[in-house]
Amino acid sequence: MSERLPTLAVVGATGAVGTVMLDILSTRENVWGEIRLVASARSAGKRLTVRGEEVEVQALAPEVFDGVDVAMFDVPDEVSKEWAPVAAARGAVAVDNSGAFRMDPDVPLVVPEVNAEQARNRPRGIISNPNCTTLSMIVAMGALHRAYGLTDLVVASYQAASGAGQEGIDTLRDQIEKAAGDRTLGTRAGDVRAAVGELGPFPAPLAMNVVPWAGSLKEDGYASEELKVRNESRKILGLPDLRVAATCVRVPVVTTHSLVVHASFAEEVDAQAARELLASAPGVVVQDDPARGEFPTPADVVGTDPTWVGRIRRSIDDPRSLDLFLCGDNLRKGAALNTAQIAELVAAEFTGA
Amino acid sequence: MSERLPTLAVVGATGAVGTVMLDILSTRENVWGEIRLVASARSAGKRLTVRGEEVEVQALAPEVFDGVDVAMFDVPDEVSKEWAPVAAARGAVAVDNSGAFRMDPDVPLVVPEVNAEQARNRPRGIISNPNCTTLSMIVAMGALHRAYGLTDLVVASYQAASGAGQEGIDTLRDQIEKAAGDRTLGTRAGDVRAAVGELGPFPAPLAMNVVPWAGSLKEDGYASEELKVRNESRKILGLPDLRVAATCVRVPVVTTHSLVVHASFAEEVDAQAARELLASAPGVVVQDDPARGEFPTPADVVGTDPTWVGRIRRSIDDPRSLDLFLCGDNLRKGAALNTAQIAELVAAEFTGA
Repeated sequence: MSERLPTLAVVGATGAVGTVMLDILSTRENVWGEIRLVASARSAGKRLTVRGEEVEVQALAPEVFDGVDVAMFDVPDEVSKEWAPVAAARGAVAVDNSGAFRMDPDVPLVVPEVNAEQARNRPRGIISNPNCTTLSMIVAMGALHRAYGLTDLVVASYQAASGAGQEGIDTLRDQIEKAAGDRTLGTRAGDVRAAVGELGPFPAPLAMNVVPWAGSLKEDGYASEELKVRNESRKILGLPDLRVAATCVRVPVVTTHSLVVHASFAEEVDAQAARELLASAPGVVVQDDPARGEFPTPADVVGTDPTWVGRIRRSIDDPRSLDLFLCGDNLRKGAALNTAQIAELVAAEFTGA
Repeated sequence: MSERLPTLAVVGATGAVGTVMLDILSTRENVWGEIRLVASARSAGKRLTVRGEEVEVQALAPEVFDGVDVAMFDVPDEVSKEWAPVAAARGAVAVDNSGAFRMDPDVPLVVPEVNAEQARNRPRGIISNPNCTTLSMIVAMGALHRAYGLTDLVVASYQAASGAGQEGIDTLRDQIEKAAGDRTLGTRAGDVRAAVGELGPFPAPLAMNVVPWAGSLKEDGYASEELKVRNESRKILGLPDLRVAATCVRVPVVTTHSLVVHASFAEEVDAQAARELLASAPGVVVQDDPARGEFPTPADVVGTDPTWVGRIRRSIDDPRSLDLFLCGDNLRKGAALNTAQIAELVAAEFTGA
């Protein structure tokens, strides 16, 4: 084991996830030696603050990975696809938050609270970070699975604008400003659409609306986000036959995804036992006292690390099923935090921590 | 059969549903003779327009039902509980949109496209109109059930503010106005809560948020709205053993409820066959071409009569299940329109139409 703290590169440091990543890295002590910030040539030369120090952003190039031990990627799929192998070829372990490698059988898909042990088995030198929607529930589902044996998931999402990046956030804010002035809006078909202006990355108005679409069109009318929830949940939980039905819907929330989950198990479940089990699971907070109006909502969860779970009920008509409502900050646990946690698993290999 | 057109009383004419009801009644010709408008003493003397004529609102009292053939009630449960039997005792057929009588075995719960025949069997002289969330899906579910035999429903709702009445609408508008000015909101836990002010009828901020609660607290952590979806679906469809799991969530939309539904059947289903079946069902419109960005959203559906269905997919892991996204205007089909349709079934008995 070396005494040297490992060197980290953050690729995509200037994006919505990258910004949260720098905040998270600034709260972690004694994990990393040098931290290099990398972005597209457009952002090179910009100075960003991490751990209280200004660091100049470097343009993405093969040489930036020389001497790097771990390289985090928060960039579009096609950028990761090209550059994560470059980083790995130069000796870095690439921790990738894009969809490029998640379903590659030679790339582990890691959620440290669920399958940390898989991070060491990385024949391509790449570890993938799951999609933000999967991450909003999977820590809680992993804990329930270990106790009861998960067989089925039915998922309906309430996804935040920031899942579509900074453009998604800006579009929602612009639309809310345009819609706020007119107190007759939302009463006639198309009036919100006429008022809010640009749709940005969304296929319909998001302010004062919900939009049943996230991602790109796949076979049989599925949205890519829905297939990710299914395929990634199966891979992370090690359940290739898990039955998953997901429908993804965007809501006018800036950040923090929410999910309604109907989860079925091999054995009968009890709501109070599930509540206690989840309350003691690492990375999960239970907030479930509707008599006092207590349940998680995105506005109260945003900016926090855990998966929040509430509305825990045994299904009335099926003693083997639970109905739950979950919230998780899609930029933190849903992206930057989980990536940082994976990178720290790798850092521990270097330092023997 | 009489030649006389029947007399209608609209009780609760000044509320959010009542206002929509007067619009709907103004578009129906040759159904009603006299239309009496009734409300609490506070609103008595107010003049409202229906069928192009000003009508003075009368205070609720036993005498207002004299000579009335059909009395619609759009009032709170406790008002209906007291006054619908009064109307019935004076010879009117009461069509009630509250929750007071829906599960009474001597009161039919009617959705004309699904179980019109039950409207004639009304030993108490009362017919109930279902809850708005149930109504947002039940016409489509009835059509699918007739073809495939429904066994299970898993429902996640995206419910509009107007489900909580005019106070719900006003609260959401106030909150959106207060939130619109600050482009940093939605990024730190509690910042939206601090900005939006009064919560009105909701247990948490609704602007820039979603709130997993609708109704009052019932046994085992269930919200009353969730039990209504289960119990009313079973009664309307005539399926006392239907397994239903519902989780109800309020979203920052003024009017029109949306639902994600995972529906399982006795036999295998096909998405395209289901699409065609729904497209030909009365009261249902299919809008399902994601390649062209076509699916229903509340902003495009509000103010229209049908149940809109999109995102129709066969579940990847279960050939007996469909996943769908539905939208319905909760003040129209979800309340006033269905009530008007029931009243028209009764009117047809008088006129022999």
